[in-house]
Order: sequence, then C-alpha cells, then structure tokens
Amino acid sequence: MRTQVGIVGAGPAGLVLAHLLHLRGIDSVVLERQTREHVERRIRAGVLEHGTVDLLRDVGLAGRLLRERMVHHGIELLFDGTGHRIPLTDLAGREITIYGQHELVKDLVAARLGTGRPLLFQAPAVALDGLDDAPTIRFVQDGRPRELRCDVVVGCDGYHGVSRTAVADHAVTRYQREYPYAWLGVLAQAPPSSEELIYAYHDRGFALHSMRSPQITRLYLQVRPDEPVTDWPDERIWAELRRRLARDDPGWRLADGPILEKSVTTMRSVVVEPMRHGRLFLAGDAAHIVPATGAKGLNLAVADVAVLADALGAWAAGDTSGLDAYSARCLSRVWRVQHFSWWMTSMLHRAQDGDPFTHRLQLAQLRYLTGSRAAATSLAENYVGLPLTGGRT
Amino acid sequence: MRTQVGIVGAGPAGLVLAHLLHLRGIDSVVLERQTREHVERRIRAGVLEHGTVDLLRDVGLAGRLLRERMVHHGIELLFDGTGHRIPLTDLAGREITIYGQHELVKDLVAARLGTGRPLLFQAPAVALDGLDDAPTIRFVQDGRPRELRCDVVVGCDGYHGVSRTAVADHAVTRYQREYPYAWLGVLAQAPPSSEELIYAYHDRGFALHSMRSPQITRLYLQVRPDEPVTDWPDERIWAELRRRLARDDPGWRLADGPILEKSVTTMRSVVVEPMRHGRLFLAGDAAHIVPATGAKGLNLAVADVAVLADALGAWAAGDTSGLDAYSARCLSRVWRVQHFSWWMTSMLHRAQDGDPFTHRLQLAQLRYLTGSRAAATSLAENYVGLPLTGGRT
Repeated sequence: MRTQVGIVGAGPAGLVLAHLLHLRGIDSVVLERQTREHVERRIRAGVLEHGTVDLLRDVGLAGRLLRERMVHHGIELLFDGTGHRIPLTDLAGREITIYGQHELVKDLVAARLGTGRPLLFQAPAVALDGLDDAPTIRFVQDGRPRELRCDVVVGCDGYHGVSRTAVADHAVTRYQREYPYAWLGVLAQAPPSSEELIYAYHDRGFALHSMRSPQITRLYLQVRPDEPVTDWPDERIWAELRRRLARDDPGWRLADGPILEKSVTTMRSVVVEPMRHGRLFLAGDAAHIVPATGAKGLNLAVADVAVLADALGAWAAGDTSGLDAYSARCLSRVWRVQHFSWWMTSMLHRAQDGDPFTHRLQLAQLRYLTGSRAAATSLAENYVGLPLTGGRT
Repeated sequence: MRTQVGIVGAGPAGLVLAHLLHLRGIDSVVLERQTREHVERRIRAGVLEHGTVDLLRDVGLAGRLLRERMVHHGIELLFDGTGHRIPLTDLAGREITIYGQHELVKDLVAARLGTGRPLLFQAPAVALDGLDDAPTIRFVQDGRPRELRCDVVVGCDGYHGVSRTAVADHAVTRYQREYPYAWLGVLAQAPPSSEELIYAYHDRGFALHSMRSPQITRLYLQVRPDEPVTDWPDERIWAELRRRLARDDPGWRLADGPILEKSVTTMRSVVVEPMRHGRLFLAGDAAHIVPATGAKGLNLAVADVAVLADALGAWAAGDTSGLDAYSARCLSRVWRVQHFSWWMTSMLHRAQDGDPFTHRLQLAQLRYLTGSRAAATSLAENYVGLPLTGGRT
C-alpha cells in the first residue's frame, strides 16, 4: 500500500488534515486503531474557537455544526458566591461555538468517507520506519501485519501514540508541568442551568458548568489526581457541584439528571520540540498537551494541521520551505496557548497544599480581571482564539 | 508629652501623614529613631505613580519635585536581546515620575519642620502600651526614657519596627512569599543610558536600568539571596550589567562611572491583616512588603496614609466610621498591588533551579505582553497606578 501522506490517528487533527489534503489533490491514508463507533462516541472537548469554525466552514466541513451548534458570547467567572460575566464578543469581537468534539468527529468521518479516500478503522500503527527518507508505517489490519509506504508521515495519534514515541528521546526537548489536581468530568442528561459556561473558583476546588446541547450538561469537578472515579457516586457528584456552583442569587439552582458518563482526567502541560523529525510531522496532542481549563486542545490541533496542509500543498508543488518552517510556526502559537492554559488553570484551581498567600493572589487576580476592561479583554482575546494561519485552499 | 496622633517613623508614610493631619488641624508627634541626615540619605525607591504626585501637589508638598523630577511616558521590556516599549501614557492615560525617595523625604522633613509641629530624630520608640484605650508610646531621647501619650498611634516604622511587633501574633494573619533571588542595587555616577527604565529578562537573571537624575544611574542585578555584596567588586557589576542589558542595537552601550553605593535587598511579599489593632493603625511597610519589581512600596504607603488621614479627620469630628473601614479599604488596594508586584517579579526573574517549562512560559508571556494592546494596557494601568482615594482636604 502506498500514498503521499500517511496519517496516523482519526481524531480531529488527522481527519481535518485528510480533508484539507483532499482539497489540494494530495493522496492520503488515515489509519485509526479504534472502531468508528468508538471514535464517534469519545466525549472530549466542546468549545470551538471562532477561527476553528471559520476554517471548517470555509472547507465545507461545518454544515451540521452551523445548524446545531450553540453560539456563546460570554463566559462567567464565579467566585465569592458571585458571578462575573466576561463578554467575549464585546471585548474581543468574536464569539465561541459549543459543539461536542465527538459530533465534529462524526461529521469529519462522514466527509472523509464521502471523498472515497481511505480511512481504515481498527488498523493500529505499530511502528514507523525510514523516517529520514522513505517512511513506512507498519500497521495491523484484520490481525495481519501490513505496510503503508508514504512520502510523509503525520502523527495525529496523541501523546501515547506510536508517532511521538517513534522519535528518539535524544532528538527532542520535552517541556512539561504536572498539576496537583485532576478533573472529574461528568456528562449528564440535564438541561444546562446557565446559558453560558461557568468557571467557578471555590474553597473546595474548581468546578466548571458547561453543556453539549439544550438537553445535555457537561460538568467538571477538581479532584485529586489519584482519586478513583468509584469514590464518586452520582449523589456525591451532584452535592459537590451544588456546593461549588452555589451563588448569592436565591433563584438559581443546578438542574440535575441521570449521569451518562464519568471519568477522571489528569491536568498537565507538555510541549515536545521540534514538531518535525525527518519526514515525520507531529500534530495536536502528539506534540503538545494543554490542561483543559482553557478549552484549547482541539483548537490547537486544528491550528497545527491548517499550517501543515498549506506546507504540504507547497511541497507537492516542489516547495519545501513550508515544511521546513512548520515546527517553528506551530510552536509560536503552541506556547501562547500553553501560557494561557497554564494561567487559567493556576488562577482557578486550589492546590490541596496551596499556601494562603497564593489563594489571596488568586482572588486578587479574579477581582482585577472582572473589574478591568484591559484584563478582561486579555482573557477574551485568548479564549476566543488568535486568528488561524493557513488551511484555506 | 501628649498629642492626638503619635506617628512612629519618619519615612514617606509617617511624614506625609503628619502633613495631611496638620492640614486638618490635628496634632501629631513624629518619632524617628535615625538622624535627619540618615533618613535624608537612605537610597530607596524612585518611581512615583501619577496619583502619588497629584496628592503631593494638592497638599503643597511637590514644589521641588515638580521642578526637578523626570517625567516618563513608557518603560521598556528587554528580552531575547530586543527592547519592547510599553507606552504607559498612551495606554493608561497617565505618566510616571522619577524622583528619588530620599529627595522626597528631604522635602517632607522641611515641610514638617516648617509647620513648627514636632518631629523628633534619634528618638526610637521602644514599646507601645495601652493600645486598647489609652495609648502610650515609650521612646528614648538623649539616652533617657520618655513617654508620648496619644489618642491614636500610627505605625509607619517598617516591617521590623516596634509597631508591627507590638501586635500579638495571634491577633494577625500573615501572608507571605519568599522569592529565591535578591537584588543587588547600585547607585552610579553615570548618565542614564536610556531615557526610560529598562526591565531586562535574561538567561543570567533579571536586570533593571533606572535613574535618579541626568547624572545618576540606578541599576539592579538579580543575585542569590545569600550573596554577599563583597562578591561584587565594581568591575564585576559593570560586566554583568553589560551582559544582561545587551541588545541587538550595535549603537547602544551602557554608560558606566564611579559606583556611589551598593547593597543587596531580598525580595518578598508580606501582608499582615488586619491593619488596625485597637488604637494602633499600621501603614506602609509596617503592614505589607512588596517585591521591588513593580515599584510600588512607596506608592502603597502613601495610599494607606491618604485613606487614614481622611479617617482621622472624620474621627476628630466625632465620626469613627472611617477608622473602622481603614483596614478593609487599604487591603483591597494592597492585594491588587501585591498581585501586580508578584506577577512582574515572577515574569522577569529566572529562578536558579527554575525548570525549562517555566522559562518558556515567561518568554511566551513577555512576547504576548509586548504584542497585545490589551495585555500591555493591563500592565500599564497597574504600573502608573490605580487612582488614590482620600488624602485631599
């Protein structure tokens, strides 16, 4: 089997890239270790930057998204029992879109299959060879070893995928930060209790009220990183959410309902530099992880492949300068987003062993942020996202 | 000896307060342990917020200041060998004033002596008694114990003075942060090499280029907190400053000259709450210390006594509500300034054991700050200072 661009991983990065390459007339094969059902049901992010939506629309991937999404013009910061709205659109001129990542993946899978180009499920890549000059992706299909020869490999298979781990340790610099807390995420069959997202800083820890649709709420609680999900029966989750999301407004209450899914996610920041190794290009979580507080993971993955699609388009026409610049161009945005995500995370979580001085600094920052137009604008312009570069044909 | 308000300490806080009380017809006595020559020569801060200057002018204390000061409309952030100007006045609508704290103290001493009201030098307070109802300041003058009975005591004698230490530990909450670095400060007979302050983030550590007059430069180097000043002969200081302040501009060079003074200052953040204990009121460094990076110590002290002078004016007319509100009113500003000072400090220093992720976050923040109008405005509005409340008669 042979193609121009071998893409490992059918998450948003791999599938958007496959589509952008298709539009440029470049052959690609997407290999995905999971089943189609699995990737279409994985509950992940749900906040799309304005630029991400624009790109998807411009390349014909946003039909259902534009019909079904929820458009938000602000978020709320809740502390000291009082909500403070950050009017994103007023401050930064752009809105955000609420649309579940798994819904987007359904759209992307359908679009890919619609092109007739290959997307193989249950086809795990197991090794990458010849990355310096003649790459081969070794993968398994129907229990048998197979090979995909290609000119270029793009690793979109996440931090634990074969792509990143194929790179020798000595060839990369890894920057990372572990946070002393994790998120217990809950998907509930309950109508959102607020029209917009609520980021709550509370003595008992961070909480986030989000949503996926008018019937489905997405909620998060800060927990210890080692806390088993079995410690959190549904009733305890609702009680804790009610505490942390409580506010002065006597009319407000948190709607509850059946919990459809729950899981614990660790919070960490990782950047692996460079993002290119010979003919292997890393994109999305394979190259960097952001803590979820800034809602940036999916958006950053799309930003990477927008740059890469332009670079591969030029490369197909004989110009390799875009590929040479890929890593540096992406990393500039990656570090901006890493800083924003770290900042949001540090401001809104309470470390279990956190000292009282830090707590007071966090409160001072939240009060300032919600009282200063300049500071609120700084949050807003990062939250709605910097303009994307590249991706359009 | 008896007065209405006993003021311990003849630094800017004590002397400005004494003047504000004088204008309100309130008796006070200022006790200072050092000689007049000593307090008039102590090299300290040099950046006055717009609001500080306005207050001094409004109460007749800014005659020489307004003639001799240097007005600055921006500061520079230097990193990666390139300077980036933050145009403070353009962004925040207010300028800053460069005027040495010891010059201001000379003006304040002269003003106090001009009123004929008591200001006793070499008169160290040794104990405060009866703070609940009938305060007495025990002090020493000409080697003999003396007593000053007063209605109210104001502690303006710094963090290690008798006022703060007179308060029982169980009566206060202390918030603090020690930083793993200190500043080696140098006063040099050399013309400033730049019209504005330069805050440099460098691999070898922070450096600051400041000035006191067209002939006198004030320079700082980040050093280890335990580093003896004797490790820093003049030639080493200049060499290190030249390294850390180096920039791409081939025409730029650091002017040097005789070093008039050098000393090492530790960097820390402290807040002691509350700022009132019975009839004792703490102001300035007696209640809070900020790391010097934000240039806020002197300005925060003036902000405290502006609030206190109003409160004491009302109290003299029989209304104690201002005194009751003093601590909370001041602490709101104190925490804003603590956060800003911590933020500037954390962004600009390199911890010796700092991890590479933190270093990259700092660079990402500096690049964003100098590229985003919102972020730069946030720095600017804090640097030029929030409006002062109170102080005018």
